Amino acid sequence: MSGSTFGTLFKITTWGESHGKGIGVVIDGCPAGIPLGEEMIQAYLNRRKPGQTRYSTPRKENDLVTIQSGVFEGRTTGTPISLAVLNETQRSGDYSEIAGYYRPGHADFTFDAKYGFRDYRGGGRSSGRETIGRVAAGAVACALLKELGIEVCAYTRSIGPIQIDYKNCKKENLSSSPIYMPDLTASAAAEEYLEATMQAHDSAGGVIECIVSGMPAGIGEPVFDKLDAALAKAIFSIGAVKGFEIGSGFAVANKRGSENNDAFLSLEHGVAQKQTNHAGGILGGISDGSEIILRAAIKATPSISATQQTVTRTGEPISVNIKGRHDPVIVPRAVVVVEAMTALTLADQLLCGMTARMDKIREFYKK
Amino acid sequence: MSGSTFGTLFKITTWGESHGKGIGVVIDGCPAGIPLGEEMIQAYLNRRKPGQTRYSTPRKENDLVTIQSGVFEGRTTGTPISLAVLNETQRSGDYSEIAGYYRPGHADFTFDAKYGFRDYRGGGRSSGRETIGRVAAGAVACALLKELGIEVCAYTRSIGPIQIDYKNCKKENLSSSPIYMPDLTASAAAEEYLEATMQAHDSAGGVIECIVSGMPAGIGEPVFDKLDAALAKAIFSIGAVKGFEIGSGFAVANKRGSENNDAFLSLEHGVAQKQTNHAGGILGGISDGSEIILRAAIKATPSISATQQTVTRTGEPISVNIKGRHDPVIVPRAVVVVEAMTALTLADQLLCGMTARMDKIREFYKK
Amino acid sequence: MSGSTFGTLFKITTWGESHGKGIGVVIDGCPAGIPLGEEMIQAYLNRRKPGQTRYSTPRKENDLVTIQSGVFEGRTTGTPISLAVLNETQRSGDYSEIAGYYRPGHADFTFDAKYGFRDYRGGGRSSGRETIGRVAAGAVACALLKELGIEVCAYTRSIGPIQIDYKNCKKENLSSSPIYMPDLTASAAAEEYLEATMQAHDSAGGVIECIVSGMPAGIGEPVFDKLDAALAKAIFSIGAVKGFEIGSGFAVANKRGSENNDAFLSLEHGVAQKQTNHAGGILGGISDGSEIILRAAIKATPSISATQQTVTRTGEPISVNIKGRHDPVIVPRAVVVVEAMTALTLADQLLCGMTARMDKIREFYKK
Amino acid sequence: MSGSTFGTLFKITTWGESHGKGIGVVIDGCPAGIPLGEEMIQAYLNRRKPGQTRYSTPRKENDLVTIQSGVFEGRTTGTPISLAVLNETQRSGDYSEIAGYYRPGHADFTFDAKYGFRDYRGGGRSSGRETIGRVAAGAVACALLKELGIEVCAYTRSIGPIQIDYKNCKKENLSSSPIYMPDLTASAAAEEYLEATMQAHDSAGGVIECIVSGMPAGIGEPVFDKLDAALAKAIFSIGAVKGFEIGSGFAVANKRGSENNDAFLSLEHGVAQKQTNHAGGILGGISDGSEIILRAAIKATPSISATQQTVTRTGEPISVNIKGRHDPVIVPRAVVVVEAMTALTLADQLLCGMTARMDKIREFYKK
Repeated sequence: MSGSTFGTLFKITTWGESHGKGIGVVIDGCPAGIPLGEEMIQAYLNRRKPGQTRYSTPRKENDLVTIQSGVFEGRTTGTPISLAVLNETQRSGDYSEIAGYYRPGHADFTFDAKYGFRDYRGGGRSSGRETIGRVAAGAVACALLKELGIEVCAYTRSIGPIQIDYKNCKKENLSSSPIYMPDLTASAAAEEYLEATMQAHDSAGGVIECIVSGMPAGIGEPVFDKLDAALAKAIFSIGAVKGFEIGSGFAVANKRGSENNDAFLSLEHGVAQKQTNHAGGILGGISDGSEIILRAAIKATPSISATQQTVTRTGEPISVNIKGRHDPVIVPRAVVVVEAMTALTLADQLLCGMTARMDKIREFYKK
Repeated sequence: MSGSTFGTLFKITTWGESHGKGIGVVIDGCPAGIPLGEEMIQAYLNRRKPGQTRYSTPRKENDLVTIQSGVFEGRTTGTPISLAVLNETQRSGDYSEIAGYYRPGHADFTFDAKYGFRDYRGGGRSSGRETIGRVAAGAVACALLKELGIEVCAYTRSIGPIQIDYKNCKKENLSSSPIYMPDLTASAAAEEYLEATMQAHDSAGGVIECIVSGMPAGIGEPVFDKLDAALAKAIFSIGAVKGFEIGSGFAVANKRGSENNDAFLSLEHGVAQKQTNHAGGILGGISDGSEIILRAAIKATPSISATQQTVTRTGEPISVNIKGRHDPVIVPRAVVVVEAMTALTLADQLLCGMTARMDKIREFYKK
Repeated sequence: MSGSTFGTLFKITTWGESHGKGIGVVIDGCPAGIPLGEEMIQAYLNRRKPGQTRYSTPRKENDLVTIQSGVFEGRTTGTPISLAVLNETQRSGDYSEIAGYYRPGHADFTFDAKYGFRDYRGGGRSSGRETIGRVAAGAVACALLKELGIEVCAYTRSIGPIQIDYKNCKKENLSSSPIYMPDLTASAAAEEYLEATMQAHDSAGGVIECIVSGMPAGIGEPVFDKLDAALAKAIFSIGAVKGFEIGSGFAVANKRGSENNDAFLSLEHGVAQKQTNHAGGILGGISDGSEIILRAAIKATPSISATQQTVTRTGEPISVNIKGRHDPVIVPRAVVVVEAMTALTLADQLLCGMTARMDKIREFYKK
Repeated sequence: MSGSTFGTLFKITTWGESHGKGIGVVIDGCPAGIPLGEEMIQAYLNRRKPGQTRYSTPRKENDLVTIQSGVFEGRTTGTPISLAVLNETQRSGDYSEIAGYYRPGHADFTFDAKYGFRDYRGGGRSSGRETIGRVAAGAVACALLKELGIEVCAYTRSIGPIQIDYKNCKKENLSSSPIYMPDLTASAAAEEYLEATMQAHDSAGGVIECIVSGMPAGIGEPVFDKLDAALAKAIFSIGAVKGFEIGSGFAVANKRGSENNDAFLSLEHGVAQKQTNHAGGILGGISDGSEIILRAAIKATPSISATQQTVTRTGEPISVNIKGRHDPVIVPRAVVVVEAMTALTLADQLLCGMTARMDKIREFYKK
């Protein structure tokens, strides 16, 4: 089957392997007339680029994006937008060793099981570089959302045991933290934790939180394409995600109805104001006009230099030490990926949501 | 848009409201030749039927299913299978009061915001009765999985603060627990907790865990239709779900790579044996042949008889006490719904997975 | 795979066999607020009902439709609309003979080849009764189109050698012709031709033409979902169709560019007025605001009582005379099916077309 | 909406405009293990390249294809295959004049109506260059079909009044005819007709026929995704197509059942042998194992240098003479496009067709 396409109306298809000629994405269904330039997309790609901090692989990649189609005179034309990033370093020599065995925690074995063989260079299609296409497309989705006054903002909520509460920190601090943790005291503590992890030849996980503001009420398609279900799929399609929550999330399991229900206070311009937001902005799969709040649990980088047990492609047990320097933590670079996948989901559902009511459709087509 | 269709090849479309003429589902894409009878489907529906225990609404519904098409001489024909359950009680008088205000924690407001008006009788399309279609279709998916030696088993992992560890309990106990919690000591404790909750005019949440055994390796479609992403969407599309995990789930956030990686031990018949299963049976979005383990956090029933603050449709604040007796906890009746959505996802991905390799396709079409 | 679902946003799924319990359709994605009642749908179904004239099978079926969900207080709710027609006569005895051999021109052999066996009663899923679901859903699509001032009108253009030119006939005559041929002189001649055909124990084919008026310009999705491509698929999915044309159709093959191009004359309210309409209302796959004109070639009913050569399921050659009385011509009853499939396609593309331009989307979501 | 994606399992997404940076396609869902090289794709692209004969535009484009992903060590990997062709000549000066008015028979007006503005350079997305992506992807589909012993062969059946009968000509002649008409006497006559057309500053249309051999029985998905319906959409999505037929096509309208039915003669290896093939290899939307025969009517190139009436973007009537030299006939260059769209449809339906029967699925997954 085909699994590299995402979305119903705002639809993206990504392509590319870690060590192939490049990575890219085609966006089909982007409305005409959105201002778009390469620099807008590049700003998002720069946030996931390697080599920005000592907590990411020092492999240098400029990851420069080119718009190949779908934009004319600075605006989207409504036709497919093709975005591509050339891979600058294609040295496959570095990776030839791992062709012979299955790295624990990686997709090496499962790709072989599925396809019979795989492009083993740098993880091939299962490499983190695959997210370049998502982020580039997400930048375009963000441009669309901006036209509607909607903002998507993700940040590092925890790394290992260090966790922050967004209410105690400032959004302005985001750019001051090398790990996108907007509580700078916690950010410093997390950096210390990462240093210790690196010295132990190990890696760390964490949680990313994403907040959407300015969302209109009424978006989301019951019953299978609920807004939260669509977001769950979008976020869970990111490589290292192992958990997903909306609003109070897993905490609801031990809350009573009286604690968990959000009381309605008033209607303002047709949008219900709530006393609390345990629901995370979604009721019955449809946005309620409050902030959408979601969280993703990210596992520790599976590539570690400590000795591990595994098997070769022919089943012989061996001990391996994975060479090369890898990101000791994926979380900070994944922040913009979570933002991108959230934006892509919202853009798609906002377009889908235009067809819910005949009175609005009639008005739309009235000359 | 359309949100009542689920799946790519094994595709279901559900219909029906709480107090309409009935509830049903059409399954399109079910392979021909699977033995199927109404009694097989009824057995699943009976597990979600109300009035089974004192922890579910005493509303009596027999929920008898009829196969309307797609089965001939006891076997599926490959054409659409239409399943329907008539609603026996359609007394709309019980619900007329809630037409005027928005119940906290319910989809009343968001349906109005989306569609301009709603079928307010018993929650209409956002009622828990909507899951009848899912469970009926899930029974058919389970019949398909059984042909391939795959078994899906869900159970109650926690209710409120009472949590069990599956390793300490027996699957045979499942049918002995009125709340589908296979550790009978814990089950009794949870029942006590529910009693106290009911006396407080309140409701409780919990966690459902689902385990899939017999799954072949190699199923799942990178990058957006990863098996875990598809499961995330499937489970999150169930009404009261607020969190979803695979394997170690949110616990990975505070585990190091060396703790979280599952070492490979050997290959047996092409399937890798692992020392641990923190991954929950999925690596890089593709099944690895181990048990698939997933969990869903279910919120407390939002309908409680304690006084709550809310607003009318015109925005005036009022205090309400929701009448009628509602399930004090959704978890036990949702167990079979989680099982159904898991089975539907697996059936679909197993069919999709047949086209991954040219050598197998060639063999398939060889006369 | 699944082939019983049609449409992207206005999406229908049909089910049912000739001699099963019934036939039905679920419409998912119909906007909320459209006035809808069973009598509106029944009026369309009555046009395809058997036993209306001596040119259709005398089998009596009332084909009474029930709305099972999705309509509340006389209006669509935006949730799935389930429509069902019970089969009144399920006498399978009439058809048991054909279980053993393959009727020429029918789908008996190919269903067996695909599924390994088939529901042989009355053609099962490949019966003409399958179109009941299309027509019922088409009636709902027409209700949507009516809200936008769009009208779809099909009629019999030819039966055997008798062909009419729409310019020479009156739409009012449609209801006066038992074969939906609005030139009453030609209609009488065609009836004579059908009488002769019936006496020869044979059957006849013909051409249906469909005209859409009131269509706005700008509908259709380049490049693969062009409006004409979508219509081609819709019409060709009707059982007996062997050819499809738009505008001048096959005649373009022998016309020069200077003859075939439609000169633009003026712009009126943004819609181009053309001197001619060889294009049939579609340029580059997008509606141009002129009438859409399409034609479908319908083959003669394959069921004839004259002796035919065929083989049994085990491959033995036999001569057969197909018993029972069948429609000597499908064309008149297929007129409303062509209308329905056209309406379904337009409804879907009109919804899809709302997302083409950011300026209109911004205005839509502006409070 | 998004209209640049085609297929369900073998899914392609094309991008690119006439005068943008390039044209390309992403193939998602191609099985792993198919031998593939750039030269295989180039051979198909060379057949649609301009400047090959005096009957196509003399604009020189080498149209060299690059495989950017999805192929490793000479075989497809199962991951997306990205193919791109750079545009060598991007002189937009040639086309600036047509920005101001609507060319008759072109999509200029309808693109403006849909998107609010358009990339007017060389027709932008509605240019014939868009078919490069289709042909490149079609070459990959043909590589898949070849593995299954299926061959797709299209040719020019008529140009203007000159028509051939395939039975009287030899496939070997295809490469000897500059217009892909394998009856060389007719080919010479058609060339004379084209010379006369060109001298009259006019253009010509024609019919392309496509024959598929080696197709297994049982492929196609009733009821909406019938094999012929899918082919109808595929072929009608090609720019200049105005008519489509299968087998006897429009001729069935004036044939009786006794003439049109194909008698079955015997079963050989489970495939029915028929006396005739009026059905064109498809019964009830499912392949019957005979040759599939389809035809497409192609209109004359709308760009002609003779004077034409039209309007400017602001609605003022003007007379225009379209400058530049354009193809006097599209048919010969469209032959390979018809072949490509046919192959893409078959590849997709063959993959979908693997899931029809439980017995075969069980065997597939049996270890």
